[in-house]
Amino acid sequence: MKKLNLNKNISEEYIINNYLRKLNFNKNGTYNFKNDAAFVRFNKNKKIVVTNDSISESVDFFKGDDPKSIANKIVTINLSDLSSMGVMPYAYTLNLILPTYVDDYWLSKFTNELLKLQNKYNFYLLGGDLSKSNRLHISSTFIGLSKTNHVVSQSLMNLNYDIWITGNLGDSYIGLQILKKNINIKNIKIKKYFLKKYYYPKPCMLGYRLSKYVSSMKDVSDGFIGDLNKMLNNKYGAKINFNNIPISSNSIKIIKKGLVEKKNIFNSGDNYKQIIISNSKYRNKIINIAKKDKVKITLVGKTINKKGIFDDSNKTLNIPKEFDHFR
Amino acid sequence: MKKLNLNKNISEEYIINNYLRKLNFNKNGTYNFKNDAAFVRFNKNKKIVVTNDSISESVDFFKGDDPKSIANKIVTINLSDLSSMGVMPYAYTLNLILPTYVDDYWLSKFTNELLKLQNKYNFYLLGGDLSKSNRLHISSTFIGLSKTNHVVSQSLMNLNYDIWITGNLGDSYIGLQILKKNINIKNIKIKKYFLKKYYYPKPCMLGYRLSKYVSSMKDVSDGFIGDLNKMLNNKYGAKINFNNIPISSNSIKIIKKGLVEKKNIFNSGDNYKQIIISNSKYRNKIINIAKKDKVKITLVGKTINKKGIFDDSNKTLNIPKEFDHFR
Repeated sequence: MKKLNLNKNISEEYIINNYLRKLNFNKNGTYNFKNDAAFVRFNKNKKIVVTNDSISESVDFFKGDDPKSIANKIVTINLSDLSSMGVMPYAYTLNLILPTYVDDYWLSKFTNELLKLQNKYNFYLLGGDLSKSNRLHISSTFIGLSKTNHVVSQSLMNLNYDIWITGNLGDSYIGLQILKKNINIKNIKIKKYFLKKYYYPKPCMLGYRLSKYVSSMKDVSDGFIGDLNKMLNNKYGAKINFNNIPISSNSIKIIKKGLVEKKNIFNSGDNYKQIIISNSKYRNKIINIAKKDKVKITLVGKTINKKGIFDDSNKTLNIPKEFDHFR
Repeated sequence: MKKLNLNKNISEEYIINNYLRKLNFNKNGTYNFKNDAAFVRFNKNKKIVVTNDSISESVDFFKGDDPKSIANKIVTINLSDLSSMGVMPYAYTLNLILPTYVDDYWLSKFTNELLKLQNKYNFYLLGGDLSKSNRLHISSTFIGLSKTNHVVSQSLMNLNYDIWITGNLGDSYIGLQILKKNINIKNIKIKKYFLKKYYYPKPCMLGYRLSKYVSSMKDVSDGFIGDLNKMLNNKYGAKINFNNIPISSNSIKIIKKGLVEKKNIFNSGDNYKQIIISNSKYRNKIINIAKKDKVKITLVGKTINKKGIFDDSNKTLNIPKEFDHFR
């Protein structure tokens, strides 16, 4: 369950707590809606994972954005959730709510990009539904499969467990700040670097291969601090070495120039990197698998007994109440 | 795959044929997008059925409609597809795209009705996604299960097979005509009867129990003639006794008064009755199961060699090219 701020009084959390939670009938695989995905067990030997996300014009992308970018977003947001559960994508359904500006050119670019991504990550379209509106909305339900029948939880862990991040945080956030004209970057190459990170997010597909060695995983959708806090689930705290948080050399330049604050990067969402929590005995195993897959992985902290998120000097961090999903 | 008429040049069929079909990778369970649902086979003994439908403000319901009615529509449209595949509902996901007018009262009524329907038909909410927009859109993916591992197709049949309809056609259509002020009915009781049929459609859940004895099933979503034509799939024709088509006594009154034409009832959608095609050797079996379930079922015709849909006097019927999904 994710997203939304309808108005001051009705938040996503409020709707889930007050209205939607009762509908899960306390079924095991729903994680009481505290996970980004759910599993269904049809018999002893088969669990399938189901995840469901939507993206909307003026919320998750701008009107007029390249359909290739929009295709990447709807796929990445869902594959990322499957990866966090440690499963591989199998198939998906697609709901397209289309405004009249959608034409052949748009449909061609959008579906060709989907085809490319389907071939790359090996999944196919099961079916869907077409509808019309004045704004573009795309919802999708993905089905994922685990070969070992093991599904990784979002908030299972123990004391002194390792906390990792894959890739770099913040690139996509800086891309968005450029588009929103909050910052101005003159260097065309660096500007293009950030815009590409915003427009064409890539899912981190390491989850499936790591699933045997990790306790919990979650993709960064609402910002590292907020998402880590969700994983800790009010049972543990975390000590984070903020100097270790992985940031691209381009982002470091932007921060040094004072264009962006570091703390905004820790709270920036939608970059689809994974937060991974694991027993430290698997440390080498995890490093080796990531190396083999050519995925950057960084050890950034550990779980502690004291609740809250702390930096190296034991200063506690403010946990953002809810991520403001862009515009 | 269903619905939509974006503009004159881009129809639903056009989008599916030109852009979406390539995305199914010719997988068996997708029926090449000619079915309203798909199946996924994870191993020899387990098929699950997946169906996916959305409803939108100003298309499938009016702005300001009772949230109870909207809950009934999103559930019925999906359960109806599962029933046509001969399976029982298991779980579902929900994408809510909400405008700011959605408040506590709305959410409470909407989710309480979902809860009621979940208890009635025995399925639960797996998860979902919340987003905002200026119009209300609800998409849902339902998962269904077959105990026998048998899934009913939409267009498997032979010559001289029976064609059946469950329930009555047209009541919901007349309800819509009243709301659109196309017709005016003074009798409050009769008026209420039709409005209720429009606002609170009920799925026909006979499919699961009939699945062993039928060749193909489909719910009437785009009108009896158009849906039957889809089932015949350009392989067979049908001879229909139009006097036998089941219509409620209230509808008969309205037709007699000249307020509604009979042919419009044959082409009216969204009433979620089932069209069933079966070998005539199962005729009694089917009648008995329907009787036991207290579902009205009417034998209306048979499959023939000659392509097209014909009435008793062998007059061919115009098959509507595409159903115009309301306003």
